Amino acid sequence: MIDLLVRDCRVLQSERGALRLLERHDVAIRGERIEALEPAGRVDPGRCREVLDARGMLAMPGLVNCHAHVPMVIFRGLAEDVDLETWFNEYMWPLESNLEADDVFWGMQLGLAEMIESGCTAVADHYFYMDEAAAAVEKAGMRAALGWAIFGSDGEAGIERGARFAERYHGAAGGRIQTWMAPHAPYTCDEDFLRRTAARARELGAGVHIHAAETVEQTRASVERTGLTPIEQLERAGVLDGPCIVAHACGATEKDIDILARSGAGVAHAPKTYLKLAMGAAPVCALRAAGVPVGLATDGAVSNNTLDLFESMRLMAMVQKHTHGSVACTLAETLCIATRESARVYGLPDAIGHLAPGFAADLILVDLSGVHHQPLHSPAASLVYSARSSDVQTVMVAGKILMRDRELLTLDKAEIVEHVSRATERLARRVPQARIQLYRP
Amino acid sequence: MIDLLVRDCRVLQSERGALRLLERHDVAIRGERIEALEPAGRVDPGRCREVLDARGMLAMPGLVNCHAHVPMVIFRGLAEDVDLETWFNEYMWPLESNLEADDVFWGMQLGLAEMIESGCTAVADHYFYMDEAAAAVEKAGMRAALGWAIFGSDGEAGIERGARFAERYHGAAGGRIQTWMAPHAPYTCDEDFLRRTAARARELGAGVHIHAAETVEQTRASVERTGLTPIEQLERAGVLDGPCIVAHACGATEKDIDILARSGAGVAHAPKTYLKLAMGAAPVCALRAAGVPVGLATDGAVSNNTLDLFESMRLMAMVQKHTHGSVACTLAETLCIATRESARVYGLPDAIGHLAPGFAADLILVDLSGVHHQPLHSPAASLVYSARSSDVQTVMVAGKILMRDRELLTLDKAEIVEHVSRATERLARRVPQARIQLYRP
Repeated sequence: MIDLLVRDCRVLQSERGALRLLERHDVAIRGERIEALEPAGRVDPGRCREVLDARGMLAMPGLVNCHAHVPMVIFRGLAEDVDLETWFNEYMWPLESNLEADDVFWGMQLGLAEMIESGCTAVADHYFYMDEAAAAVEKAGMRAALGWAIFGSDGEAGIERGARFAERYHGAAGGRIQTWMAPHAPYTCDEDFLRRTAARARELGAGVHIHAAETVEQTRASVERTGLTPIEQLERAGVLDGPCIVAHACGATEKDIDILARSGAGVAHAPKTYLKLAMGAAPVCALRAAGVPVGLATDGAVSNNTLDLFESMRLMAMVQKHTHGSVACTLAETLCIATRESARVYGLPDAIGHLAPGFAADLILVDLSGVHHQPLHSPAASLVYSARSSDVQTVMVAGKILMRDRELLTLDKAEIVEHVSRATERLARRVPQARIQLYRP
Repeated sequence: MIDLLVRDCRVLQSERGALRLLERHDVAIRGERIEALEPAGRVDPGRCREVLDARGMLAMPGLVNCHAHVPMVIFRGLAEDVDLETWFNEYMWPLESNLEADDVFWGMQLGLAEMIESGCTAVADHYFYMDEAAAAVEKAGMRAALGWAIFGSDGEAGIERGARFAERYHGAAGGRIQTWMAPHAPYTCDEDFLRRTAARARELGAGVHIHAAETVEQTRASVERTGLTPIEQLERAGVLDGPCIVAHACGATEKDIDILARSGAGVAHAPKTYLKLAMGAAPVCALRAAGVPVGLATDGAVSNNTLDLFESMRLMAMVQKHTHGSVACTLAETLCIATRESARVYGLPDAIGHLAPGFAADLILVDLSGVHHQPLHSPAASLVYSARSSDVQTVMVAGKILMRDRELLTLDKAEIVEHVSRATERLARRVPQARIQLYRP
C-alpha cells in the first residue's frame, strides 16, 4: 500500500552535478520515505491511501537551511544600515539580553512558518533556549539539527548545558531532530574551550556547528592575536575531527580551504547577510573546487531579514558571477548546492536533498505557471532566477504535508503573531552596556 | 465628489531624502489625481463614489521601471551562464531575428501583467514594433515612456521610423504614454547617427533613451577606438542636450559622471542584469553624490529573468553595501531612489513617484501582514529587505484600479499565456549568422 501518491509532476534531480528533469512523473510515498518514482500513470491510484494531484507543478527536494538563528525573527528590522561591529555591540547582543524562553518558543514557530511557506524542510539552528526551539520544531513538523549556542564565558556549565540538550533531543520528534554542539566562534571561545567542546561532541557522537572566519578582517585579527587563522584554530582544537558546519568562512584563506577539504567539514553560505553587512563574497567556487561541500543558509533575520532559501540560492549564484564572471555558478551547480550539497553540509547526504526511492519524503511542489515564469523555456532558470517563495504550493516532511496549496497545516499563524506582537516593545529595548557578549575579534 | 477613497492605510512618503510614514491615513482620489491625504476618518465616505478598505496595508507610489525591454519576456531563460559577448552574439540578437509584430503585442502584455502584479505602474520601454507595444499599454492601463529601438545600420529610415512613432503616440492612451527617441548605444550607432537622432528628438520635444557605458570594458574599448568614452560621445553628439535616460553607466568614469551631472540626464540601474552578466557594480553612490538622478530598472528578462522592481531595489542596496560598506545606501535613500528619483529619471518628477495632493493616483497597496514581515519593527526595512512582489495587493494608475486583491482586471493572463506559448518553439530557434546586430564594442 502507498500512503501518498504525488501525481503527474515534473521532478527535479541533481546527479553528480548534472541536472535532470523528469517530465510527468508520479512520486509514491510509503510512511516517511519515497517508495517509487515512476512515469505518470504506472502506479495504480487504487493502491494509494491519498492522491495529490500535482499536474503543472515541479517537485523538488525540500530546501535545507544549513545555518540559521530562527527565533531571531523577533528582532527583524531592528539593525539596519550599520557596520558589523555596531551591529553586534549596539544591536544584536544588547537585543538578545531581552530574550526569554517564551520568546524562543513563539519566535521559532514564527520563523518556521516563514520557512515552510518558502519551501524549506530542514534547518540547522544555532540559538538559545533550545528546549523551546525543539518543542516548536516538533509542533511544526519540520526537520531540524539543533545546537544550544555557547560562549567561552559560559565555561564548563555552558558545555554541559549544550551537551545535556544534545543528549536529550537527539532523535526527538520521531527522528526529525538531530543535535549538534554549538560553540559560538573562535573569537568568543578560546582554544581550550573549543577543545573541551569538541571532545564532548565526540563523546556524544555529535558534530560541531560554529561560526568561523566570518570576514577577511576576522581572519587578519585572529592571525595578529594568536598566530593562527580561525580555521587553523578549529583544526588545532580538534573541532574538525568530527562532523562540522562552518558558518560563514568568507575570510577563509587558501590554506584554510585545504584544511577544510581534508577535514570533511561543510560550509554554510548566507549571501544576503554578507551583502548587507559587507562581509565580502565567500569563496564558494574555491571551496567547491577543493571539494568542500557548500550548503545554503539564511543566517538570522536581523542581518538577513528573511529566511528565504530561494533568495539565498539566487544571491549565491549572482554574487559568484559578479565576482568570478558570468559563466561561474551555473544553473546545474546552483541547484546541486541547493539540494544535495546542502544535505551533505546538514549531515544527511543519503537521506534528504534528493528525490529518489529510499530518500525521505521531504518534498516541495513549486508552481511555475505564474506570468513571471512564462513562457517556460527553462524550468531550471525559472527555479533559480524567477521563482519566488510564494510559488511554493505544497510542502511535506517525512511524508507528512505541512503546507497544502499555501495553507499552513501545523502552525497557527494568527496565534503566533499575536504572541510575538505582544512582546515587541520589550524586545526592541536596548539598555546601554546590557549585552550578552562584546564583539572584539 | 471623491471618486475613490483608499481608507485607513499607512502611507510612505520620501521628502528630501528622508522617509515619512503617515499612520492611518486616507487617500482621496478625484479623476486621475490625488485630491487629499488626511488622517483616517476625516473624509466623509458619503462624499465618495467608491471606498477601498486598506486597513493594515501600506500605500506607496507605484514603482517606476526606468529601462526595460518588456516584450523580451518571450525569450526568458534562453541565455543563461554565458559571457556578455556570447549573450549578445549567440543568443539575444539571433533570438530577436525571430521577432514578429504579434510577438511584441502578446509579449508586452505578458510582461506588463508581471509588472502590474509586482507593483510597477510605469515603464520606460526600449524595443521594436512599438505600435503593438503601445496597444498593449493602452489595454493594460499602465503608464509608459516608449521608444522604438534603432541601430546605426537602420540609417535615416530608422530615425524616421522612431520619430514617426514618437509623434503618433506622444500623449496616447489618455496621456499615459510618452514617447522618446531610442537609439541603441554608442557602439551600434556612430556619432553622426546619434547627432541626427538627437536633433530629431529636440524637434519633437522628446528625450533620448539609450544604452551607454554598460561595462568598464565598453568604456575602455570606446576610448581605444574613438578617443572618447561612450558618455563623452553622447555629449559631443548632443544627446545630452535634452532629457536623456542612460542605461546602465556601469562603466562611467569620474569625468563621465561630471558630464552627466551637468547635463541633467538620469541613469537607469538594473542590478540583477549586472550581477548575472558580471557587468560590475554601477557607481550609484558616486552618481548620486554628483547629483545625477538614479532610477530603478529591470532591463529585459533575458538577462534579468524577472521584471520585479522590489528585487531591483533590494539588489541595488545590497550591491552598494557590498561595494562601499554596510552603511551605504540606507533605507531612506533606497526608498527615495525607488520612488521620487525613479520618477525624475522617467521624466515626470512632479507627476508620479510621490503620494501627495496634485500627484497622479499611481498607487500600490502592499500587505505587510505576512509572517515574513512579522513582527513589524520597521516597515521601511520590511519594504526593502522582506517584501516580495507577491505582497502587492492592489495597483492603480491614474486613479484606475488595474489589480485588486491580486486579481488582474485589465489583462487576460490565460489568453496571453496561450498566445505566447503557441510561439515558443519558433521563438527559441537560433540560426547561425542570423542576428539583428553584432556585438563588437
